[in-house]
Amino acid sequence: MPAAVINGVVKPGRSTSVYSELETSRLKVSPPLPSVLKSAFDVVDGPKTSAAGNPDEIAKHFPKLFGQPSVSLKAGGSLPRQSLKIGIVLSGGQAPGGHNVISGIFDYLQNRTQGSTIYGFKGGPAGIIKCKYVRLTSEFVYPYRNQGGFDMICSGRDKIETPEQFKAAQETAKMLDLDGIVVIGGDDSNTNACLLAENFRAKNLKTRVIGCPKTIDGDLKCKEVPTSFGFDTACKIYSEMIGNLMVDARSTGKYYHFVRLMGRAASHITLECALQTHPNIAIIGEEVAAQKQTLKNVTNYITNIICKRADAGYNYGIILIPEGLIDFIPEVQQLIAELNEILAHDVVDREGAWKKKLRSQSHELFETLPKAIQEQLLLERDPHGNVQVAKIETEKMLIQMVEAELENKRKEGKYKKDFKGQPHFFGYEGRCGLPSIFDSNYCYALGYGAAALLHTGKTGLISSVGNLGAPVENWTVGGTALTSLMDVERRHGKFKPVIKKAIVELEGAPFKKFASMRDEWSLKNRYINPGPVQFVGPASDVINHTLRLELGSQA
Amino acid sequence: MPAAVINGVVKPGRSTSVYSELETSRLKVSPPLPSVLKSAFDVVDGPKTSAAGNPDEIAKHFPKLFGQPSVSLKAGGSLPRQSLKIGIVLSGGQAPGGHNVISGIFDYLQNRTQGSTIYGFKGGPAGIIKCKYVRLTSEFVYPYRNQGGFDMICSGRDKIETPEQFKAAQETAKMLDLDGIVVIGGDDSNTNACLLAENFRAKNLKTRVIGCPKTIDGDLKCKEVPTSFGFDTACKIYSEMIGNLMVDARSTGKYYHFVRLMGRAASHITLECALQTHPNIAIIGEEVAAQKQTLKNVTNYITNIICKRADAGYNYGIILIPEGLIDFIPEVQQLIAELNEILAHDVVDREGAWKKKLRSQSHELFETLPKAIQEQLLLERDPHGNVQVAKIETEKMLIQMVEAELENKRKEGKYKKDFKGQPHFFGYEGRCGLPSIFDSNYCYALGYGAAALLHTGKTGLISSVGNLGAPVENWTVGGTALTSLMDVERRHGKFKPVIKKAIVELEGAPFKKFASMRDEWSLKNRYINPGPVQFVGPASDVINHTLRLELGSQA
Repeated sequence: MPAAVINGVVKPGRSTSVYSELETSRLKVSPPLPSVLKSAFDVVDGPKTSAAGNPDEIAKHFPKLFGQPSVSLKAGGSLPRQSLKIGIVLSGGQAPGGHNVISGIFDYLQNRTQGSTIYGFKGGPAGIIKCKYVRLTSEFVYPYRNQGGFDMICSGRDKIETPEQFKAAQETAKMLDLDGIVVIGGDDSNTNACLLAENFRAKNLKTRVIGCPKTIDGDLKCKEVPTSFGFDTACKIYSEMIGNLMVDARSTGKYYHFVRLMGRAASHITLECALQTHPNIAIIGEEVAAQKQTLKNVTNYITNIICKRADAGYNYGIILIPEGLIDFIPEVQQLIAELNEILAHDVVDREGAWKKKLRSQSHELFETLPKAIQEQLLLERDPHGNVQVAKIETEKMLIQMVEAELENKRKEGKYKKDFKGQPHFFGYEGRCGLPSIFDSNYCYALGYGAAALLHTGKTGLISSVGNLGAPVENWTVGGTALTSLMDVERRHGKFKPVIKKAIVELEGAPFKKFASMRDEWSLKNRYINPGPVQFVGPASDVINHTLRLELGSQA
Repeated sequence: MPAAVINGVVKPGRSTSVYSELETSRLKVSPPLPSVLKSAFDVVDGPKTSAAGNPDEIAKHFPKLFGQPSVSLKAGGSLPRQSLKIGIVLSGGQAPGGHNVISGIFDYLQNRTQGSTIYGFKGGPAGIIKCKYVRLTSEFVYPYRNQGGFDMICSGRDKIETPEQFKAAQETAKMLDLDGIVVIGGDDSNTNACLLAENFRAKNLKTRVIGCPKTIDGDLKCKEVPTSFGFDTACKIYSEMIGNLMVDARSTGKYYHFVRLMGRAASHITLECALQTHPNIAIIGEEVAAQKQTLKNVTNYITNIICKRADAGYNYGIILIPEGLIDFIPEVQQLIAELNEILAHDVVDREGAWKKKLRSQSHELFETLPKAIQEQLLLERDPHGNVQVAKIETEKMLIQMVEAELENKRKEGKYKKDFKGQPHFFGYEGRCGLPSIFDSNYCYALGYGAAALLHTGKTGLISSVGNLGAPVENWTVGGTALTSLMDVERRHGKFKPVIKKAIVELEGAPFKKFASMRDEWSLKNRYINPGPVQFVGPASDVINHTLRLELGSQA
């Protein structure tokens, strides 16, 4: 069992946990590499890049890096077997495959350089700031190959933002004599990686910074970065559970399962799970927002389908809801904003006099909410006193609102069944699953490619592996200029550079496919039960629908 | 795609659903048979049997069947290739593998008899009473082979109890000229099967009745019936999710996941999942009951471990709780009994004057419960006005009680961390999963064996497949006299014959193994992440720990 030296102190690695038979079998598998990474390669610069929006502003934020080309790797060429010092950091929430990114970086440096040193910063970007790291050795890294979780070096949600923090990062880079840092994270973390690359360059540090696209939510992607890792595995795990509920619903014939799925800023997970399983209803937040729907609209949409299904003899169904649904409903946003304002300054009296401070539309909406949700809105506050939207059990709220609406329909003689809603939330279960074969391979290539980019002296790029619909050996490898993915956003009165979250495109192939089939799914039961993720044999090499459809529409 | 004739009307079978790649691959697999079922066999009677308790009472209830021998199948002999008419019924909650029991019965009759007719009663025992059935053909049965759920003929929770219902069952048996009925169900359903067998025999009907042991809860088992089907798959699915949460907890380092698991009357599922995954805490209801623990005892047990873990530097953990926990706590039972009494006769006034009717101990307990749980106790009533224990979110209740207790510890300076509890309930997700290879094979053998028993003219037996630790071909096949599993229980002032639920034996090998390891698990993290159920390759042929340990201790 591995042990590790952390800042001079011997610490156990995964030695306290016991491997299951399946984990052990995955440990023994070496992920295949794209052929361009199997032998000598050249880095080919593309044309000068711009930004996703407001190039002048982005140029101001990144005077050193703005405009630099994206690059791709081509067979041929040769690189010196120099010795490199590389730091790695995991940033933000877990996603299956993170360990393989690290394995890929590690193996590249072992295979292609001589006597390199690799550091893992502990607990996310705070590890850089505080210079808290672990020296990654072969014995330390190996036990995490193809395994889920981020526990090798753990992650954190800090950012490197203030001048003091940048200063601390510079000191760490100097102290460890780092040639490069790989930042494995989502949109914000990759924005941060680019700021760090710019800062190091401006300070004439040799330390270069490369990003890697991570998030189960699937909202960090663009033409050059077809998907973020972890999305594939998480959606497959959720779809396994949804498929089981479908079989259960069809067998018992008496439950409506309301399934809330992780994903606040975008509904990619809900859309992908819908494409994998064919539920009766899936609510896509982006559509709700585009159509400026109210909570009542959403409730009525669900209620109407339940009534139509009752007429067709079905008293059961499966309904998927994105975690961030209420973030997409303008009137709810308005109510929450008003509540935050009121609760910051006023006392909530039991008699409800405080409600008079709500605007009439918000007051009306508040009164239509189930009592438990009203209480969650009033009681669950974050340390800043704001309503904790993530804690609101949207699936239970919708069940109660649908129940009330069905009661109205019953009085009108339009509904005669007995409605039973079962709430579910699938979230944490999917973030740390054993990475699917796709995520295992994709992450290993992302990491191997990231190290290759550092080896060639690149900075401010995000590791980009493409042609993912083809066999692994035909995958393309390169780096995309992070500044080319950026736009500015006004935050607290200032322009900030950001990589825009990729939300569900209502004109994109995955949503259009869903939209073309959902009416049929709603009344006829076209359920698909994908079953558990397989690692050998049938169904082990499928990739998710979203990626397949997006690749197809690009072709 | 299959279609079926249901009472003369053509109905689609699984034609509306689409098979996933994994389901399709499972469809193509023929489960292997124990070698005794592969060729000619003889039925060998064992010695005269008695009852599990109160044999005189049981003899009174079963004058025709009491004392009949259990039987086993041995190679040799020959049976006529006669034509049989057999009905099949699924009774009670879903369990993975039910479809394979039906496939086994079907294949036996196809292979070993000539021109037999097979009926599937629709929607459980009510299908027998109402003579609602579907004729099972090869085209109808095939699409369900190795598939999860009970949707082929669906199930129901009715019982055949009243004289009118027995009369109706006799009429169905006569109308369809049935040679036999196979009842696939849990302890109550198999008791009912035995009553039906006795009734038919008493009425000189030729219809014989054979039971099959089904329940994910694992509480129908005895020496001759080593396990009930579905338990293996359900526990593996729950353990996959628990394992993922463990990796997540270890990665983030800041959550205590409280996982409530299905299983009301017994804690086998919680115990099995604990053996598969090594959580920090698992509460076993039977132990709580044996030690007459209070809710406060359970809360303190959890809180103390959380404090000790905090001292050891761990601010996260995994805690498993059986759904039926509060059924095992005497004081809670007492409170619920009093509440049922009070609420049946009194109005619950908002000021709480009604509480004076509670005994002082119950009143005290009620006041210590979190507000949300108090409301659930008062508001969630079943149609008879009783508290719905199954709806109580025990995991949330414990989180809140632990939170309050940790706050006390904090005031005493004994706890300094920030406790974050995450509630989970894993239930429906496991009932209808794709059956594991073990459950697929076990069920097929149970069904094939049940048909063999009917073919030899047996009645009042439960299909019994043994030696399950060996390869399938060495499994033993036979039938156990249902009366030999029975005792009497006083219900509503009358003695009723029942098959006693097999609760977790505190002296049994599985619990003892757990008890010998839990202290280590509580403070050191010995997590095991089994990963998703596999159907090919590594980890595909494992059987559950409970069964393995119980077989081992018998050997």
